[in-house]
Amino acid sequence: MPKTPPTNFKPAPNLGRELKGLVIINTGNGKGKSTAGFGTMFRAWGRGMNICAIQFIKSEKSQYGEQLAAEKIGIEIIASGRGFTWTSKNLSEDESRAKNGWRIAKEKIESKEYDLILLDEITYPISFGWIDLNEVINTLKDKPEMLHVILTGRDAEPGLIQAADLVTEMTEVKHPYGDQGIPAQKGIEF
Amino acid sequence: MPKTPPTNFKPAPNLGRELKGLVIINTGNGKGKSTAGFGTMFRAWGRGMNICAIQFIKSEKSQYGEQLAAEKIGIEIIASGRGFTWTSKNLSEDESRAKNGWRIAKEKIESKEYDLILLDEITYPISFGWIDLNEVINTLKDKPEMLHVILTGRDAEPGLIQAADLVTEMTEVKHPYGDQGIPAQKGIEF
Repeated sequence: MPKTPPTNFKPAPNLGRELKGLVIINTGNGKGKSTAGFGTMFRAWGRGMNICAIQFIKSEKSQYGEQLAAEKIGIEIIASGRGFTWTSKNLSEDESRAKNGWRIAKEKIESKEYDLILLDEITYPISFGWIDLNEVINTLKDKPEMLHVILTGRDAEPGLIQAADLVTEMTEVKHPYGDQGIPAQKGIEF
Repeated sequence: MPKTPPTNFKPAPNLGRELKGLVIINTGNGKGKSTAGFGTMFRAWGRGMNICAIQFIKSEKSQYGEQLAAEKIGIEIIASGRGFTWTSKNLSEDESRAKNGWRIAKEKIESKEYDLILLDEITYPISFGWIDLNEVINTLKDKPEMLHVILTGRDAEPGLIQAADLVTEMTEVKHPYGDQGIPAQKGIEF
């Protein structure tokens, strides 16, 4: 039996309202937070927008699928991390890398040279206390009006949520690890 | 106060387990379902995988950001829809377009020529009864072993969830329409 089409699906028409750059957060324990960030980047790139991405956990040496793709089409991508930091034996290096990533991000946000900046997995160094939450919030508040900023990662702080225009939580309904013993898939999840 | 790094974040190592193509569903009422689908496509394209996308709602004439981007880099994208069908005065044309989209999708799934196929917003024509749910489920069950298929859209049917390996629900935590009167943003949401 066909369902009634949803009435709340159609995008809001632009009834003379102001466009503005959005602060977007993708959070939650499910998949798709970074992936949707890169999807938005892909879409924006299709429209010729100026884009850059800063990855706070992934390392530049890892050659992730999104890094390979960004490189192929000339999207600027900076990976300031060293991989999964919590397995690291040198947390002070991880911390200084995170601070350096944020310094670059802040500079880019304030530069007025971009239409879209992705701060991938930034919630982790914020949660660990390596990047100052209030400084991030203030930088977002003072960002160029038309700049879109996307922040991803689990456990986004309430203050960050409050500073955002659009927040989506990705929740795991079913996953292939454990349940079925299927490992992470190259090209799909990394 | 820094939080303890999560222990369940690290991707499962490939301990001799078999790789296989995944059936992935992005559902829920929030943003990011299609966007994460396109993000996965972008990542897979970075790794040189063979990809195509079939869009069941969007029309080829719409020139969405993801269509422009896919065209620029040569990803095959077929938009079988005519836009938001529920505002349509000609539902029989919408239905026949959806059936045609599925015929193409099925052919591509069975062709063994792809590594990743995105069936964007396919849950809607399934919910409306325009595409047969059981045929979709059986086609996914019989798909080439290494092919990944991503299905997106609200209200994924329980049978579809059951046929999937990885299901994520995108939930709206905060959104800029209504709340703040900000319209949908070009390059970000379409």
